Amino acid sequence: MSLETARTEHLDIGDVRFAFRRLGATAGTPLLLLQHFTGTMDSWDPEVVNCIAESRPVIAFNNLGIGSSTGRTPDTVEQMAADARSFIQGLDLPTVDLLGFSLGSMLAQVLAAQHPDLIRKIIIAGAAPRGGEEHLVEVVGEAFAVAGPDVRLPLFFTPTEESQRAGRAFVARAMARKENRDPDGGDDISEPQAKAIIGWCASKEEDQATLRAIAQPALVVHGSDDTMFPSINAYNMFKAMRNAQLLLYPDAGHGALFQYPERFVTHCRTFLDE
Amino acid sequence: MSLETARTEHLDIGDVRFAFRRLGATAGTPLLLLQHFTGTMDSWDPEVVNCIAESRPVIAFNNLGIGSSTGRTPDTVEQMAADARSFIQGLDLPTVDLLGFSLGSMLAQVLAAQHPDLIRKIIIAGAAPRGGEEHLVEVVGEAFAVAGPDVRLPLFFTPTEESQRAGRAFVARAMARKENRDPDGGDDISEPQAKAIIGWCASKEEDQATLRAIAQPALVVHGSDDTMFPSINAYNMFKAMRNAQLLLYPDAGHGALFQYPERFVTHCRTFLDE
Repeated sequence: MSLETARTEHLDIGDVRFAFRRLGATAGTPLLLLQHFTGTMDSWDPEVVNCIAESRPVIAFNNLGIGSSTGRTPDTVEQMAADARSFIQGLDLPTVDLLGFSLGSMLAQVLAAQHPDLIRKIIIAGAAPRGGEEHLVEVVGEAFAVAGPDVRLPLFFTPTEESQRAGRAFVARAMARKENRDPDGGDDISEPQAKAIIGWCASKEEDQATLRAIAQPALVVHGSDDTMFPSINAYNMFKAMRNAQLLLYPDAGHGALFQYPERFVTHCRTFLDE
Repeated sequence: MSLETARTEHLDIGDVRFAFRRLGATAGTPLLLLQHFTGTMDSWDPEVVNCIAESRPVIAFNNLGIGSSTGRTPDTVEQMAADARSFIQGLDLPTVDLLGFSLGSMLAQVLAAQHPDLIRKIIIAGAAPRGGEEHLVEVVGEAFAVAGPDVRLPLFFTPTEESQRAGRAFVARAMARKENRDPDGGDDISEPQAKAIIGWCASKEEDQATLRAIAQPALVVHGSDDTMFPSINAYNMFKAMRNAQLLLYPDAGHGALFQYPERFVTHCRTFLDE
């Protein structure tokens, strides 16, 4: 079973139907994947996800309104986190670990701070804290203004030859699933999600209360040259959390975790197994 | 063969007799250990050194004037680095990796920048760059002013119960060698070494030229609460080197690498094996 071949399952909660895929080991704390701006289950890197799933259960899902899930995408991180919590509890999972990338990292922070018993450990990549520095609109606008084979090449990778080569390999891996792929979204997803991210970063918080409330072990992974969420965010998050490790990768942009899949998987395993 | 039991060997270069100990695998690039302020071969953590030596050759040595080596301790990082280079070349080693801790990290930076063919990879822990922020005299002075079982407990570990417990375990491990221990040094070592460290941090450099000259892969490991060399040094070094990874550990002081020996060894292996 792999991310590319896992069957899409469904969970009904109220009038919402969540789409999700499970893979990996059956025993152990499951790792729940929280996806980036406009991303679906099929936007994850199969190499990263399949390798992590060798030693633990992994669950990818689409939050409300995304891909093959129904419902309406909310425009706040807090509501998205509440929806993710409904999904976790709907699956009857007593405890989960979280891997949150970009927008997903914001949900992971809220969930970890609010639910110390439900969330065991968090890995946050390409993250920004409440009140953090973001350049979403400018950078995304510039990336879409340039014609190219995939907007993730300028958005997730640096301009160097090595990083772009790694980016093309990532994009090819992420296209591996042919059957039952999640549909891409439109403005009904990107608009509320952009509002949520911008609102999160605009909301200054007294003494970084959310991060200070996170007592669980946290692994913060970031690229040296993330243009949307600069790496100083990651350093500041590390300093504010009481039990965080910081990992910064060289010549890497927002998609640092997909640029060095083997390295990232090893670091995740070391962290989750401790 | 372990750090506690390895035979002390000697290498004569000119009128200097270097003391060193070799352990671990015979094949592979050797990892040379570069020690901290006033430290000898016996100041290393046997758990860290022995675990790293399971998969590669490891060499500990005393630089000029330290412990069981002869000669006079110089008062500049540059001369200490030149002496270390003589030692490496005296052993006929074509290439080495370096693990430099604190003062040793400064030697590692100079060696990596000056000798791209001799130095393959560097791991620098508790490091400061040229022109970096240091609080050596105040912090060491305060630590010696408080009576305690070992000055490394306040200097290398944070005041939390967990960190101090890890500190006591480290000190106990570092005392394991009973026979043929290196003698502790006096002012003839601490004075020139302090001058070297303070001079290194006081010497501002145009555009961080030393760090920018380091093209080799570098792993920067630092504690969240290093009182002598604040963690922002590590972040700034990461940003200035072109191929560095940064790893910051929580609730950890200058001795972060000895507080989490298993984690540090795993991270070193991942880095050195890549």
